[in-house]
Amino acid sequence: MALKFTKMHGLGNDFVVFDGVRQNVSLTPENVRRIADRHFGIGCDQVLIVEPPISWNADFRYRIFNADGGEVAQCGNGARCFARFVRDQGLCDKDEIVVDTDAGQLRLVHRSDGLVTVNMGIPKHAPAEIPLDIADEAVSYEVVLDGNAWSFGAVSMGNPHAVLRVDDIDHAPVERLGPLLERHPIFPERANIGFAQVVDRHRIKLRVFERGSGETLACGSGACAATVVGIEQDEIESPVQVDLPGGSLYIAWEGRGRPVFMTGPAVCVFEGEIEL
Amino acid sequence: MALKFTKMHGLGNDFVVFDGVRQNVSLTPENVRRIADRHFGIGCDQVLIVEPPISWNADFRYRIFNADGGEVAQCGNGARCFARFVRDQGLCDKDEIVVDTDAGQLRLVHRSDGLVTVNMGIPKHAPAEIPLDIADEAVSYEVVLDGNAWSFGAVSMGNPHAVLRVDDIDHAPVERLGPLLERHPIFPERANIGFAQVVDRHRIKLRVFERGSGETLACGSGACAATVVGIEQDEIESPVQVDLPGGSLYIAWEGRGRPVFMTGPAVCVFEGEIEL
Repeated sequence: MALKFTKMHGLGNDFVVFDGVRQNVSLTPENVRRIADRHFGIGCDQVLIVEPPISWNADFRYRIFNADGGEVAQCGNGARCFARFVRDQGLCDKDEIVVDTDAGQLRLVHRSDGLVTVNMGIPKHAPAEIPLDIADEAVSYEVVLDGNAWSFGAVSMGNPHAVLRVDDIDHAPVERLGPLLERHPIFPERANIGFAQVVDRHRIKLRVFERGSGETLACGSGACAATVVGIEQDEIESPVQVDLPGGSLYIAWEGRGRPVFMTGPAVCVFEGEIEL
Repeated sequence: MALKFTKMHGLGNDFVVFDGVRQNVSLTPENVRRIADRHFGIGCDQVLIVEPPISWNADFRYRIFNADGGEVAQCGNGARCFARFVRDQGLCDKDEIVVDTDAGQLRLVHRSDGLVTVNMGIPKHAPAEIPLDIADEAVSYEVVLDGNAWSFGAVSMGNPHAVLRVDDIDHAPVERLGPLLERHPIFPERANIGFAQVVDRHRIKLRVFERGSGETLACGSGACAATVVGIEQDEIESPVQVDLPGGSLYIAWEGRGRPVFMTGPAVCVFEGEIEL
């Protein structure tokens, strides 16, 4: 079958996006692996398929597949690309879009400056909800890695995050400590590990070691987690500009029980057609 | 400007190919770097532009640009992709195609099995022509790397190659010795470093540390160099199947003063259009 696609990225986190509304898109895990391969296929971090909605009040459904063929629930950068895609392709001209994902409904807003805002949901702080195998909730926990004590904050943004504060982002021990803390027994489902440098009360620099992927150019949920943890520790206040290796995101959070709003760019790189 | 392109690969060595015959393609080094970027652009090892010929007896000219924007003279995997491209796009239905490149004319033959044969030119053995800073030509030279003596053969396929023989390709010290020999003072223009395991008289396994790039999936000129060196050292005889990480090439060489013929696949992955 010949399938039309659009190659997009959000801060370098890149996607092959298929319109599954106007064409029939049914991909096997092997199809996904071939599409994602950067030398033998199209090349991307993830494959995103836009489909008709499941819920009565949604505009679309989307599904996201990792490069290994496995389906994932959600992705902040992918959500922004989805919103731009349905507008650019003429599938929807609403400013606010509701989409069904495997992690529940998402609400996306097109801003007049071209950026897209995603409601990333309400963070969870209780250790059991992260999950973090520590009895009592705190804004800061301690762990021994490589013989040294490190303190970190932890939160769930639908996926588990730990955030460590560093003084110099360029020399943060991402490659050394990331894999150790990701797989530490206190995180029974492993965790994404963020390293954050506070620039001022409204700006941080962040690098994230993503669970199962290693360091990435831009982790949207990691930017949200680092902002939430920084606000809880009273290091920063909302809104916060988060500078990632791939570019900047803008995170707003009004505090416990409120959702996190992430604003950032989504870029269409090219259009293509592939025979599968 | 909106440009149509085709994404192709030869054994995983991948190319963004532009038809510069039917559309006006004029790329700045910055355009090339953006196109080659795997997260923010289309993504490829090299960009290839097909143009009208310069010589009266050629069918086309092609130009090849590395991901850093610099122009290179020639590339065996790119030559095969070029041949398939002009046939698939209906630019030329000849079985034998003559193309002007910055390294001189190339002759390419479409085989009935779908593979493409490239005349890779006549290898040069004299040290001064490689260039190799050793006084007397030999089929084997010695060098001390990391405190140990290693013997290697050397040849120019238009670019300098050293070939070391190993017993087990999977444990060849490519990452350790490749950079050391690539930049050893005996190679004043540096060199591509091949590690070859002889399987039988007509088959070798090969990994190549490419000059300026590191280890690659499939180095066409490296496969030719390893075959020439192996024949000169009487370890193998023509024709030779060369198994590279990205797949197999078939190399034929009738001996000194004769050209090397490389046969292998070229695959079109998808068609696209990008706004630059």
